[in-house]
Amino acid sequence: MSTQVADASLSLQAALRDVAAEVDRQFDHLLAVPADPRARLYEAMRHAAIGGGKRLRPLLTFATAQLFAVDRICAARAATAIECIHVYSLIHDDLPAMDDDDMRRGKPTVHKAFDEATAILAGDCLHALAFEILADPATHADPFVRNELIADLARASGPSGMAGGQMMDLMAEGQSFDLATVTRCQALKTGALIACSVEAGAILGRVPPEGRTGLRGYARDIGLAFQIADDILDVEGDQDAVGKQLRKDEAAGKETFLTLLGLDRAREQARLLVNQSIAHLHSYGPEADLLRAIARFVLERDR
Amino acid sequence: MSTQVADASLSLQAALRDVAAEVDRQFDHLLAVPADPRARLYEAMRHAAIGGGKRLRPLLTFATAQLFAVDRICAARAATAIECIHVYSLIHDDLPAMDDDDMRRGKPTVHKAFDEATAILAGDCLHALAFEILADPATHADPFVRNELIADLARASGPSGMAGGQMMDLMAEGQSFDLATVTRCQALKTGALIACSVEAGAILGRVPPEGRTGLRGYARDIGLAFQIADDILDVEGDQDAVGKQLRKDEAAGKETFLTLLGLDRAREQARLLVNQSIAHLHSYGPEADLLRAIARFVLERDR
Repeated sequence: MSTQVADASLSLQAALRDVAAEVDRQFDHLLAVPADPRARLYEAMRHAAIGGGKRLRPLLTFATAQLFAVDRICAARAATAIECIHVYSLIHDDLPAMDDDDMRRGKPTVHKAFDEATAILAGDCLHALAFEILADPATHADPFVRNELIADLARASGPSGMAGGQMMDLMAEGQSFDLATVTRCQALKTGALIACSVEAGAILGRVPPEGRTGLRGYARDIGLAFQIADDILDVEGDQDAVGKQLRKDEAAGKETFLTLLGLDRAREQARLLVNQSIAHLHSYGPEADLLRAIARFVLERDR
Repeated sequence: MSTQVADASLSLQAALRDVAAEVDRQFDHLLAVPADPRARLYEAMRHAAIGGGKRLRPLLTFATAQLFAVDRICAARAATAIECIHVYSLIHDDLPAMDDDDMRRGKPTVHKAFDEATAILAGDCLHALAFEILADPATHADPFVRNELIADLARASGPSGMAGGQMMDLMAEGQSFDLATVTRCQALKTGALIACSVEAGAILGRVPPEGRTGLRGYARDIGLAFQIADDILDVEGDQDAVGKQLRKDEAAGKETFLTLLGLDRAREQARLLVNQSIAHLHSYGPEADLLRAIARFVLERDR
C-alpha cells in the first residue's frame, strides 16, 4: 500500500469517527427527553438515532461542504437533518408490515425495543424534525439556501425519491424486474438520499446548479456502487458485522444486481462505478481526497 | 334566525364547498399517477387525500389569508400542504398498531383498501409532499415567507406538536390523566395543526409575529372547542354521518373532556371557548366574518 493511500484511509477513518461523534452530539441535543408522557417517544428516537450506523450520508455532506469552506456548524446541522430522514426510513422499513426486521445496527429495531405504535410515531417525528432543523436560521442565515436544502430533501425523500423507491422495492417481490427497473428502483430507494447528501454540501457552499454537474455524477455513481456492494454484502457478509439480518432478498425471490449480473460482473460493475465516480471529481484537487476515499470505502466496507 | 346569521351560515357552506373543491383540484394535480410500479402508492395517496373530510384546516388558512388580501393560489398551496400533514396523520393513526380503524371519511381506511405497507409509505409520502409544496417558489416568491411556513408546520406536526400529542394520547390508555394533562395532550394532538392553519394565513399576509396575538388566541380557543365537540360527537354522533367508528375512547377507558367534565359542563365549556375565540377577533371588521362563522360551525357540526 502506498503512503498516500494509507494516509487517505487513515484520514477516512478519522473523518468517519469525527462525523459520527458530531451527529451523535447533534441528536443528543435535539432529542433531550421531556418530563412528560412523550418521554417514551423521545427514548425511541434516541434508540434509533444515536450511536449507530456508518453515517455515510452525513460524511458525504461534510466532505462536500469542506470543498467550499462551509461553516462546520451549518454542515453538521444539514447532515443531521439528512440522517433524520435516513433513520426514520429505517424505522418504518423495519416494521412488521414492511421488511419485518428484528435487528438494525446491531440493536433491536425500534418496534422490538418499544412497540409498533411508538416506532411509527418515532419515524414520523424524525421526519418532521429534519425539516424543522433545515428551516432554522441556525442552519444557514440565507433563507434561499435553507429553502433549497428543504426542497431538495423533500424531493429526495418523497414519492419521487426514497419512499417511491421503497414502494417499487415492495412491488419487486413476485415480479421479475429487469436490470433497468432494478437500477431505477435503487436510484430512488438509496440513490436519491445519497445524492441529496452531496448536493446539500454544494448548496451550503452556494455552488449554483450548473456548477454541480461533477458532484452530481460522483453522487449518482457511488449511490449505485453502494447498492451493488449492499447486494453483495447481503449474500457474502457476516451478519454480526453488518448488524442486521442478511440473505432476505434471496428468500423473498427478489431480483437484485447480483441475481441479474452474477457475482463477478456485479463486483466488476461496482468497481467501474467507483472509478467513474472518482473521475467526476477531476476538476478538484487534494481537497476532494476525502470524497475519493469515501468512493473506495463504499466498495470495500464490510458493514 | 336573523338574516345576518343566515347569510354567514350560507357563505360558510359556500366557502366549505369552494375550499374542498380547490383542495381536491390541488391534490389531483400533485398526485398524478405515474406509469411505473409506484402507481399503487399514488392511488393510495389519492384514496386518502381526495374527496373527503371537512377541510377545516384549509378553510382556516383561506379565511385568515383573505383578511390580508393574500393571493388565492398561495393560500391554496399552503392550505394543501397543511392538509397533506393532516391526511398523513389520519393514515398512520388508523393503522392496526395505532387506533386500528377500518373506516375513515366514510370510506375504508388506506390499509384496508390497500395494505399496511402501502399505507405507511403513502403517509410518509404525503408528509414529504407537504414540505415539497411549501419550499416551492410557486407557494410564495419570498423565501423568508416559505421558510416561516415550513418552520411552523414542521414544529406543529413533530414531537412538540401533533405527533407528540398522539404519543400522549397512546399513553392515556390505562392511565388516568387529569384535566390539565388531557388539555395539553389535545392542544398538541389537534390544536397545534389548527393553530398552524391560521398562522399560515397570517404568515402569507406578512403579518409580523407581534401582530398575530388575536389570531393565535382565536386558533387556540377553537382548537380546544373543536376537540371538546369531537369528544361529544364520539358519544352522541351518528356513525354514518361522521364516517368513522365512534365510541372508541370509552371502550379504551380513556379520560376525555367528557369523562372529566360531564356532558353539560363540556358543552358549556365549548360554547364559552367559541365566544372567547370570536372575542379575539375584535380588531377585525366584517372581513373576519368567515372566521367567526367557522368558530360557530366547530360547535354545531354533526361530523
